[in-house]
Amino acid sequence: MPRILVLNGPNLNMLGRREPSVYGYETLADIEAKLEKIAAELGVELAFFQSNHEGALIDRLHEAFEQCEGIVINPGAFTHYSYALRDAFASVNIPFVEVHISNIHARESFRHHSVLAAIAVGQICGLGTYGYELALRAIVRHISTQGGEA
Amino acid sequence: MPRILVLNGPNLNMLGRREPSVYGYETLADIEAKLEKIAAELGVELAFFQSNHEGALIDRLHEAFEQCEGIVINPGAFTHYSYALRDAFASVNIPFVEVHISNIHARESFRHHSVLAAIAVGQICGLGTYGYELALRAIVRHISTQGGEA
Amino acid sequence: MPRILVLNGPNLNMLGRREPSVYGYETLADIEAKLEKIAAELGVELAFFQSNHEGALIDRLHEAFEQCEGIVINPGAFTHYSYALRDAFASVNIPFVEVHISNIHARESFRHHSVLAAIAVGQICGLGTYGYELALRAIVRHISTQGGEA
Amino acid sequence: MPRILVLNGPNLNMLGRREPSVYGYETLADIEAKLEKIAAELGVELAFFQSNHEGALIDRLHEAFEQCEGIVINPGAFTHYSYALRDAFASVNIPFVEVHISNIHARESFRHHSVLAAIAVGQICGLGTYGYELALRAIVRHISTQGGEA
Amino acid sequence: MPRILVLNGPNLNMLGRREPSVYGYETLADIEAKLEKIAAELGVELAFFQSNHEGALIDRLHEAFEQCEGIVINPGAFTHYSYALRDAFASVNIPFVEVHISNIHARESFRHHSVLAAIAVGQICGLGTYGYELALRAIVRHISTQGGEA
Amino acid sequence: MPRILVLNGPNLNMLGRREPSVYGYETLADIEAKLEKIAAELGVELAFFQSNHEGALIDRLHEAFEQCEGIVINPGAFTHYSYALRDAFASVNIPFVEVHISNIHARESFRHHSVLAAIAVGQICGLGTYGYELALRAIVRHISTQGGEA
Amino acid sequence: MPRILVLNGPNLNMLGRREPSVYGYETLADIEAKLEKIAAELGVELAFFQSNHEGALIDRLHEAFEQCEGIVINPGAFTHYSYALRDAFASVNIPFVEVHISNIHARESFRHHSVLAAIAVGQICGLGTYGYELALRAIVRHISTQGGEA
Amino acid sequence: MPRILVLNGPNLNMLGRREPSVYGYETLADIEAKLEKIAAELGVELAFFQSNHEGALIDRLHEAFEQCEGIVINPGAFTHYSYALRDAFASVNIPFVEVHISNIHARESFRHHSVLAAIAVGQICGLGTYGYELALRAIVRHISTQGGEA
Amino acid sequence: MPRILVLNGPNLNMLGRREPSVYGYETLADIEAKLEKIAAELGVELAFFQSNHEGALIDRLHEAFEQCEGIVINPGAFTHYSYALRDAFASVNIPFVEVHISNIHARESFRHHSVLAAIAVGQICGLGTYGYELALRAIVRHISTQGGEA
Amino acid sequence: MPRILVLNGPNLNMLGRREPSVYGYETLADIEAKLEKIAAELGVELAFFQSNHEGALIDRLHEAFEQCEGIVINPGAFTHYSYALRDAFASVNIPFVEVHISNIHARESFRHHSVLAAIAVGQICGLGTYGYELALRAIVRHISTQGGEA
Amino acid sequence: MPRILVLNGPNLNMLGRREPSVYGYETLADIEAKLEKIAAELGVELAFFQSNHEGALIDRLHEAFEQCEGIVINPGAFTHYSYALRDAFASVNIPFVEVHISNIHARESFRHHSVLAAIAVGQICGLGTYGYELALRAIVRHISTQGGEA
Amino acid sequence: MPRILVLNGPNLNMLGRREPSVYGYETLADIEAKLEKIAAELGVELAFFQSNHEGALIDRLHEAFEQCEGIVINPGAFTHYSYALRDAFASVNIPFVEVHISNIHARESFRHHSVLAAIAVGQICGLGTYGYELALRAIVRHISTQGGEA
Repeated sequence: MPRILVLNGPNLNMLGRREPSVYGYETLADIEAKLEKIAAELGVELAFFQSNHEGALIDRLHEAFEQCEGIVINPGAFTHYSYALRDAFASVNIPFVEVHISNIHARESFRHHSVLAAIAVGQICGLGTYGYELALRAIVRHISTQGGEA
Repeated sequence: MPRILVLNGPNLNMLGRREPSVYGYETLADIEAKLEKIAAELGVELAFFQSNHEGALIDRLHEAFEQCEGIVINPGAFTHYSYALRDAFASVNIPFVEVHISNIHARESFRHHSVLAAIAVGQICGLGTYGYELALRAIVRHISTQGGEA
Repeated sequence: MPRILVLNGPNLNMLGRREPSVYGYETLADIEAKLEKIAAELGVELAFFQSNHEGALIDRLHEAFEQCEGIVINPGAFTHYSYALRDAFASVNIPFVEVHISNIHARESFRHHSVLAAIAVGQICGLGTYGYELALRAIVRHISTQGGEA
Repeated sequence: MPRILVLNGPNLNMLGRREPSVYGYETLADIEAKLEKIAAELGVELAFFQSNHEGALIDRLHEAFEQCEGIVINPGAFTHYSYALRDAFASVNIPFVEVHISNIHARESFRHHSVLAAIAVGQICGLGTYGYELALRAIVRHISTQGGEA
Repeated sequence: MPRILVLNGPNLNMLGRREPSVYGYETLADIEAKLEKIAAELGVELAFFQSNHEGALIDRLHEAFEQCEGIVINPGAFTHYSYALRDAFASVNIPFVEVHISNIHARESFRHHSVLAAIAVGQICGLGTYGYELALRAIVRHISTQGGEA
Repeated sequence: MPRILVLNGPNLNMLGRREPSVYGYETLADIEAKLEKIAAELGVELAFFQSNHEGALIDRLHEAFEQCEGIVINPGAFTHYSYALRDAFASVNIPFVEVHISNIHARESFRHHSVLAAIAVGQICGLGTYGYELALRAIVRHISTQGGEA
Repeated sequence: MPRILVLNGPNLNMLGRREPSVYGYETLADIEAKLEKIAAELGVELAFFQSNHEGALIDRLHEAFEQCEGIVINPGAFTHYSYALRDAFASVNIPFVEVHISNIHARESFRHHSVLAAIAVGQICGLGTYGYELALRAIVRHISTQGGEA
Repeated sequence: MPRILVLNGPNLNMLGRREPSVYGYETLADIEAKLEKIAAELGVELAFFQSNHEGALIDRLHEAFEQCEGIVINPGAFTHYSYALRDAFASVNIPFVEVHISNIHARESFRHHSVLAAIAVGQICGLGTYGYELALRAIVRHISTQGGEA
Repeated sequence: MPRILVLNGPNLNMLGRREPSVYGYETLADIEAKLEKIAAELGVELAFFQSNHEGALIDRLHEAFEQCEGIVINPGAFTHYSYALRDAFASVNIPFVEVHISNIHARESFRHHSVLAAIAVGQICGLGTYGYELALRAIVRHISTQGGEA
Repeated sequence: MPRILVLNGPNLNMLGRREPSVYGYETLADIEAKLEKIAAELGVELAFFQSNHEGALIDRLHEAFEQCEGIVINPGAFTHYSYALRDAFASVNIPFVEVHISNIHARESFRHHSVLAAIAVGQICGLGTYGYELALRAIVRHISTQGGEA
Repeated sequence: MPRILVLNGPNLNMLGRREPSVYGYETLADIEAKLEKIAAELGVELAFFQSNHEGALIDRLHEAFEQCEGIVINPGAFTHYSYALRDAFASVNIPFVEVHISNIHARESFRHHSVLAAIAVGQICGLGTYGYELALRAIVRHISTQGGEA
Repeated sequence: MPRILVLNGPNLNMLGRREPSVYGYETLADIEAKLEKIAAELGVELAFFQSNHEGALIDRLHEAFEQCEGIVINPGAFTHYSYALRDAFASVNIPFVEVHISNIHARESFRHHSVLAAIAVGQICGLGTYGYELALRAIVRHISTQGGEA
C-alpha cells in the first residue's frame, strides 16, 4: 500500500484561526480528516507532519527517504525562500505536489515565486482547502501511472 | 444545471501530436470525453471551444456572458501575454480555473508568469491532462459553495 | 470632407456591461452616436470599427490607407503589447490620437505602458467616454493645422 | 460659479521662446487668453499661476484648498520627480487634469513616467497648446458630473 | 520534391508601400516571384502565405504538419511577442529560418529580441528582400544535409 | 575589382577541432577555399585574416581603410563585448555583414547580444559554415546596389 | 494589565559581545532590566523571548495569540528574509513595533529592506538600545489609543 | 542649554487637514506645543521651521551651522529625492533623527526609500505624531551620550 | 565682450566649511576671485549666482536668455535629479560646461549619473576647484570656435 | 593545539545518498575520517557539527566563541539566504573558509551568490569532497600566519 | 623634471580620419604637438603611447611604474570594459586624468559608464581635443600640489 | 608524466609590487618556485605563462591542445569579461581550476562574477598565493581520478 506524506509548513497549524478571510475556517485537523477518507478510497496510507521549523521539515523529509512514495506539501512561506527545503526534496528524490490554499498570484508580489515548483510534479493554488484533496489524488495518480500521463 | 465552458488556447488542437515528451499522447477529444463523464457525475453541462485565434477566444467568452457559471481554461501560450484575454474574463465576470498540462515552472522562464492568474480562482499545473479533470471538479465546487471554501 | 476612422479594440464591445465601476454605463453605440454629432459640427465623416481580433484591426487600418485622414483609437489591452498594431499605424502613416476611458496610470502596472503612444500624435486617458469626444476634436484640429500647432 | 486653477510648472513661462520645434510659438499669455474664452462659455472662473519654484506651486495649491473646485496643471519637468507636488494634490484633495504640450512618450525615456498621473483624474499629452483647452473642458465636465461619467 | 512554406506575418502585405525608407520598394509579390525562380533552380516546391492574424499563421503552420519539409518566415512584429507562434513551430517540428528585411538590431530596442529565434535553425536580418533568397537557400541546404553541416 | 576582407575572431582558428558538436568539422581553410570559389564567380577579390588578438583585428581593419569595399566578419566571442572593434568599424566606415556559425540565440544568454550588430549591414546566424557563403554574397550585393535594395 | 511580548531574533543573545563597534556594550539582560522599569512605570506586564531559531520565534508568537496585546521585536537578520515570521504576525494579528539597534540604512544594502515592516505599526532604527525603550512606549501608547493617533 | 531644530518639509503645514486617515487630526502647532513641554523636561531649547521649499529648508539648515546641536526632521516627500537636502545635512554636520508619521513601508513603493536615512542617526516611522516626541528624546539622548550608546 | 554666467547650486555657499576632506578649504569667493583673473586674461565678462533654490537657478537662467553666451555650472546635488534645470538650459539654448569639484564616479552610486550632462558641451570632475578654471577656459574656447573644434 | 570547527549545513547528512551524480558517493563520516587524518598531520583538533536547522548552526557557532580558532563550513543551501548565519559569523569573529562540493557557478543561478562569502577568508568550490581537505589546510595556514600571507 | 605619460587607446590613431563629425579633423600628431608646447610651458617631460592592444597599454603602464609621475589617458572604447586596464592603474599607483574628446553622456548608453573613472583623479569629456590640454594642466597641477587642492 | 599549464593573466607580473595590501609581497617567481616543489612531489610537469594580452593567453591555450592534461589559471581581471578566453577553454577542452589570490566576493561588485567559472572544474579564492598550491593539488587529483571524486 503506497505511503503518502502530507507536509505542512509554518503557520498552517493556525489554519482556521489565521486570517480566515484569506484561508477560511477549516482547521488542519479538518483537512487531515478529509484526506484520510480519500486515502481510504484510493488505497494509500497517509502520514501527516506540520512544523514551523524549516529544519524539522527537512529532518522529516529525510526520514521519508525510501519509506514513502509521494508527498503533498503546503510549504507556507517557505515556498518563497527555503532553498534548503528544495535541496531536501532533491536529496530524497520523492515526487511531490505543491499546494497553496490561496491564489498566490493574486497576493503580494513576493508570493508569486516558488523556489520549490521547478522540481515539483505540479502545483495547485487558489482552490481553498479542497486543493489538498486534489493534490492527494494527483500524486497518487502520478505514482500509479509512473508519471506516464503527466 | 450549471453550465461550464472548457476553453483551450493556441496549439492545443495539436495535443497528442505536439511534443509528446512534454504534453503526452492524449488528444483534446480524449480529454473532452473524460470531462463529459465527470460532468455527468457532477451534474453540470459542458461546452467546449478551442481556437488558435485570441480574438475568437474573446468572442466566445463574451458569448458566455450570463450564459455560463464557470470556466476551465488552458490558455496555451496566451497565458504569458494576452492581456486582452484577461480583460475579457474581467468583462464577463465568470469565475475560472486556469490549467496547464506541463509544469510551467520547470520550463523556459517566459512560461513562469501568467497574466491571467491574478484574476483566476486558482491555477493547476504539471499534472498532465488529469489537471483538466481536477480543474473541472474545482470550478464546480467553487460555484456550488459560492467561493465560500476557497 | 475629411474622413476619420474610429477604432476600438478588444472588449470595448462590452462597454456598458463590462466592469461599469471602471468603465461606466455607456455603450459603444452611445459613444458613436455622440461622436457623430460632433463630426457633423466639425464637418468630418466618421467610420467605426471594433474588433477583438488584432488581425482584423490591422486589416481595417490597411484598408484606411490613403482613404482616411485621421484616426481615433482606443486599443484596449492591445495598447500594452500589440507591436503588430503599432507597425500597422507606421505602414499606413495616418496620424492618430490614442484614447483610454480609465486612467491607465492609476491601475495595474502593466497598463502604464503603451507600445503605440510613441508614434501617436497624442494620448488622452482617464476622462471617461468624454475622452473620445476630445480625441475626435484633437485629431480634426491636428489635420486642419497640419500638425503645426501641436 | 466654479473656480478652476490653471497651474504651470517650470520653464512654461518660456513658452513661445523655448524650443519652438517642440513646444510651438504660442506664449503662456496666448494660452491663458484662449482659456478665458472657454471659461466664459462654460461658466467657470479661472485663476492662473506659473512658477519655476516647486515650493511656490505647493503654496499656491494649499491656498486653493476649499477655494477651488478643479485644477488644470502642466507640471513641466516636475512631472517626473516632484513627489512633494503629488502630496500637495493629495493634501488639498482637488480633482485635476494633467496636460503636456508635447507627446511625452515620444521623447527621452525619463519623460515617460509621471509621478502625478496616478492621482489625477486623467492626462492629456501631445495635442499642443490645444491640450489645455481640452483639459479645461474635461475638468469642468468632471466636476459637473461629480466624476460620474469618467 | 521537397516542399517549403514561405510565411509572412503582419503588415508585410504592405511591403513596397509601408515605410519604404526602412523596407524598400519591392512588393511581396515581387519577392515571391524571385523565390519561385530560386525554387526552380533548387528543385523545391514553394507555398506562400501571409496574414495579419496570428491565429491564421498558426492554423497554416498546423496544416503544414507532415506536409512540408522546411519553412522560411518573416514574422513581422510577431517576432517580439508571439509565444503562440513559437509553440506552433514546436508543435509541427519543421525546421525554419527566420528572416527580417531590416536590421532589427539598429532599430527600437523592442525589436532586438526574437521569441522565435531560440528554436529556429538560424536567423538572417538587415539584408533587405535579398534575405528571403538567402533564407530559402539556407533552409533547402539544411534539409538536404539533414542539419549535418550547420 | 571590389576587395572584400574576411575577418575571423578568437578561437576560429580552432574550427574543425573546437566543439565539433556546435561548430562542425570544417576548418577555417576549408571555408576560405569555398569562399574563394564564390569570389571568383562574383568577380571580387578576397583577403583573409584571423586573430585571437582584439588589437590585431583592429589594426587589420585600419589597414583596410580606403583599401577595401566590404567586410565579412565572424567576431567570435568579441561579438559580445568588444566595443573597440565596433569603434574600429565606425572609424573605417566600411560596410560589413556579421556571421555566426551557430545560432547564438539558442545558446547561453550572454551570446544573445552583439555589440557590433547595430552598425552592421546585417547579421546571419545558425546556418553553419554556409553562413559565410551567404554573407559574402550579401555584402557583394550590398556594395553593387549601393545599399539600395537592403 | 496589558501584556507585551519582547522578542529578539538571531544573534541578539550575543549583544555586548558581538561587534560592539556596531551594537554597543550592553547585554540583552541589561536591556530587559531597563524595559522592566519602563513597564512598571507604564503599567504593563512584559514577557521576553530570544531565539536563534526562526521556528521557535514563530511558535512563541502563536503562543501569544489572544494572550498578549502588543509586541516589540528586534528580528535580527530575519528582518530581511523571514516571510514565515511575517505570516506568523499576520496569523496572530497582534500589533508590533520593529526595532533595530543600528541604522540599517547605513549598512550593507541587503539590510535596507524589511519583510516585516509593511505589516508593523512602525519601525525604529539607529537609536541604539534606547530604541527598545522607545518601541515599548510606542506599542503601549498604540494599544491604549487603539491606534487612533498613529 | 542644547539647541534642537525641528524641521518639517512640504505639506506638513497641512497636518490635521491633509489626508486625516493617513496622518491624523493633530496640527503642526499641536505637535510643536507637545514638543515644547518635552523640551522643558529635557532642558533643551527648540526652534521650529516648516517650508514647502527645498531651498528654504537648506538655507535654514545652513543657518543652524554651529548654532544647533541636533535636529529632528520630517522631510515629507523630500525624503525620497532631495539629495540637496542630504548634502545640506552633510555640510553642517549636525546629527539628526528622521521621523515619519505614517509607516512609509506600508504605502506606495516610492515611499520605501529615504535618501537621507543613510546619514541620519536613526529613523522612526509609523508611530503617528508621537514619533516626533520619541525623535526629540532620541536626539537629545544621542547628543548627551556623544553617540556612545547608539 | 562675451558674457559668461557662473552658476553654483545647493550647498556650494558652504564651500570651505562643508566636508573639507571632500571639497577642500577654498570658499566660493576665493574661486570667483580666481575666475575673474582668468576672465580678464580671456577678455570675457563674468556674472556669478549661487542658490540653494532650484527655482532661483532656473529664474536666473531665464534672465540670461539672449544676454549671455556661455555658462559654467556646478549644479551640486541638482545634478542628479533636477530635470527642471535641464529643461531650463534647453529653453535658453546657451552652451554650458558642467563642473564638479570631487570625482563623482568615486562616490555614492547616486552621484554617478548627471541628468544635465547629455545636453552640456562637456563635463569636468574630480579636479578640485581648479576644475572651474578649466571649465571657464573651455566654454570661452567653445564659444570662440563656434563649437567647431569640440 | 588550535581547535577547528567543521560545520555542515542542511542535507549534507544525506551525502553519499543524495544526488550522487552531483555530490559523489562519499558520506559525511568518510569525509570526517579523512579530515581527522589531516588534522593529526597538521597538529590541530577538530570538532564536527551538522544540522538541518539554521538555529542549531547559529547556536553551535556561538558556543565556539573564544573556544575555537578557525572554521570550515559547507553551508549547503543556507549559503544563498541565511543572513542570520552570516551575522553569527560576525558575532563570534572567527575566521572561516567556505567550501562547496559542487561547482556552484555551473548550476542554477540562485546558487551563484553566497551571502557568507563577503566575510569569509576565502571560498573553495567544485573540487568535490577533496575541497574539505583543502579548506582545512587553508584555514590552518591562515591561522598560523595570522592572515599575513593570504 | 616630472614625467607625464600620455596614453591613447584603440582607434585614436585614426583621429582626423575617423568619424570627423564626432571627433573633429585634428590628428593625434597634431594633439601631441600642442601638448609638447604646454609641457614646455609647465616644465614637464612627455611620453606618448597609442595602441589598439589592451595588453600593450598595460605593458606600457607597467613600464611607467616608478618612472613617471602622472598620466593623461584617453582609453577609447576600453573605457567601458577594460577592467584589466583599471587593475594596471591600480598596480602602478600613478595618478591619472581620463579624457574623452566627445561628450560620452550624449552618445549611446554603453558609453555613459567608465570602469576607470572611480580610480582616476578626475575626468574631462566633451571639450574636443582641447580636453587633452586641460587634462595635462590638471594632472601637472595635481602632482605639484600633491593632490592637496583637488 | 602529466603536464600542467599554469596561466596568469593581466597584472599578475606585478605581484609583490602591485597593491600589496590586497595581494601580498610574494612575486610570481616565488609562487612558481613553490609550485615546482609541489609538482615534483606530485609527479607532474609544469609550464608557466603570464601575459597582459588576452590574445596571447588564448594562443597559449591553443598550443596546449592535446599537449597538456590540466590547467591552473588566475585570469586576473579577464575573469570578469573575457568570453574569448572562456571559448578558448571550451575549444581545447582541458580541465582547469580557477584561482584568485584575494576574496573576490569581498571587493567591488564587478569582481563577484566570473565568466569562466561555469566551465571550470572549480574555483578557489581568498586564500592568498597559497591558493595556487591548492589549485595545483586539486587539478592533479581531478585528472588522476578522472573527475570521479569531484
